[in-house]
Amino acid sequence: MDALLFNGKLRLVQDYPQPDRLPGEALICPTLIGICNTDIEITRGYMQFHGVLGHEFVGTVVACDDADADWIGQRVVGEINAACRQCDVCRRGDISHCPHRTTLGIDRRDGAMAELFCLPVACLHRVPDHVSDEAAVFVEPLAAALQILQQTHIQPADQIAVVGDGKLGLLIAQVLRLPGCAVTLVGHHPERWAFVHHQGITCGHASAFHASTFDLVVDCTGQAHGFATARHLVRPRGRLVLKSTFHGATSLNASMLVVDEIQLLGSRCGPFAPALRLLERHLVDIHPLISATFDLQDGLVAFAATAGQLKVLLRNNSKHRHTTV
Amino acid sequence: MDALLFNGKLRLVQDYPQPDRLPGEALICPTLIGICNTDIEITRGYMQFHGVLGHEFVGTVVACDDADADWIGQRVVGEINAACRQCDVCRRGDISHCPHRTTLGIDRRDGAMAELFCLPVACLHRVPDHVSDEAAVFVEPLAAALQILQQTHIQPADQIAVVGDGKLGLLIAQVLRLPGCAVTLVGHHPERWAFVHHQGITCGHASAFHASTFDLVVDCTGQAHGFATARHLVRPRGRLVLKSTFHGATSLNASMLVVDEIQLLGSRCGPFAPALRLLERHLVDIHPLISATFDLQDGLVAFAATAGQLKVLLRNNSKHRHTTV
Repeated sequence: MDALLFNGKLRLVQDYPQPDRLPGEALICPTLIGICNTDIEITRGYMQFHGVLGHEFVGTVVACDDADADWIGQRVVGEINAACRQCDVCRRGDISHCPHRTTLGIDRRDGAMAELFCLPVACLHRVPDHVSDEAAVFVEPLAAALQILQQTHIQPADQIAVVGDGKLGLLIAQVLRLPGCAVTLVGHHPERWAFVHHQGITCGHASAFHASTFDLVVDCTGQAHGFATARHLVRPRGRLVLKSTFHGATSLNASMLVVDEIQLLGSRCGPFAPALRLLERHLVDIHPLISATFDLQDGLVAFAATAGQLKVLLRNNSKHRHTTV
Repeated sequence: MDALLFNGKLRLVQDYPQPDRLPGEALICPTLIGICNTDIEITRGYMQFHGVLGHEFVGTVVACDDADADWIGQRVVGEINAACRQCDVCRRGDISHCPHRTTLGIDRRDGAMAELFCLPVACLHRVPDHVSDEAAVFVEPLAAALQILQQTHIQPADQIAVVGDGKLGLLIAQVLRLPGCAVTLVGHHPERWAFVHHQGITCGHASAFHASTFDLVVDCTGQAHGFATARHLVRPRGRLVLKSTFHGATSLNASMLVVDEIQLLGSRCGPFAPALRLLERHLVDIHPLISATFDLQDGLVAFAATAGQLKVLLRNNSKHRHTTV
């Protein structure tokens, strides 16, 4: 089958072996797959991952255990961490931190940029009928945005800044406005701001805002310098949420975190069910985030086309073939 | 008067001018002054402070405004941040973060290592009769230890590690054991561990403990490498409290904070009233923390004697002279 493989170099492999489905897993034929900044960082060495890329998908279940037969033919999205669900970490509820986990297209598990891939049925969520494929493929990053609300108490009177006007920043700003907070999006792509500005979100360059003025600042620039901007904007005793994963280290003035009693929060994967509810209720707008859609077979062109763009999607046109497996 | 001055170099000045007391301030004659790690970091360039050092003290009020006359002769300790108490930051209760504040012996305010010094009456706390001077001089670092309980919810079932068996670490370990937590002190000075081990605190070298096992880890090593040890010990979704202030930057793998969803908390000055209550109730033991006491006039020798030691105190023997002012 066709698969987009990274093994030190990104390439399209046309004779990649079909995955061997393990008990408890579903064999999934993806319809759409999103290219995430994490995928691009992996091609720069992040996580030292070698394998099929892709962890944002919507697809159809084509095979699973007999006990799970009602999943066959279902349109699904899936949580990306395949956990053991038996260890102490899983049993205290931190499934996405299971030390034995594999992660779809990121850590020791082939991802969704292929004609077929596997994921445990326990990770799957059915997509409601009136959520489109184009919306559903955003569930994974939207859940990551909602994770901020899972981790820390967002108060309606909070003054919030989101640093980074990429696709994740544009999702996070939309989510953080929902409890009624004043939200400012800090970036340098004014051409992207119209639709969130229309939602009541203030947008501007970092230089337009005063230091130490925001109660909570989210860094989702995906770059080391974003942390410095976020640190500059957060008030003493404020919270700084880190959303960026990238290859390399950041220099930190730890003493100044102590003096200003800043709270830093690392934040990763989030809850899928509320993300699906937001899409069903049309409370976030994902359509302006789609820059382009390419066939899976044009994956290399698609990756090259991500530079300076928002979400680039891959479409798997072999879908019909595999849904009749 | 005699004063221990740092102006690029630490020296004892014998003709330092007596301070001009401003309205609202008390003129204080210190009895004992503690040498803190922050004082030593200042002599290495931290905060670019030039002036009289010293922010841990117990002393007697010798002058103040007529309206505050009942403070005269009182034995006091004092919060070290002199805030405006009028700006938005102060009015929301974050007095220790007032952007207009000066800080005793740390930032634009001469400290307590002198025969006399000034501090706003609003910063003062009376010392109960049955708290000794030797105990009272620990109120400032003990309050800093209690600040951890102010900032984050410490649960009795939490597994806690305190990295750093210096004077602050030995105080923090004692405080964090009070809600019933299992507390481990990580250090490399076994000769200091007996009295806290006797309190039920596990003590050991970093190599004796497994990675990712503690719910909450406090770094109070005062050194950049302490952060790495603390990061190693904290579990995914755990909390890492930073207590160290030192001159210089730390290298941080921000992506790994995101992947493990670690919460980092900068923590500084804390509440004095509960610290005095802990001393009154004999719930922490400070006597094993005192390594030596020197006369203020032997301050240079005292600073040199801090290497490898716990708390070194300075005694102001001019006390009698000034209390008759």
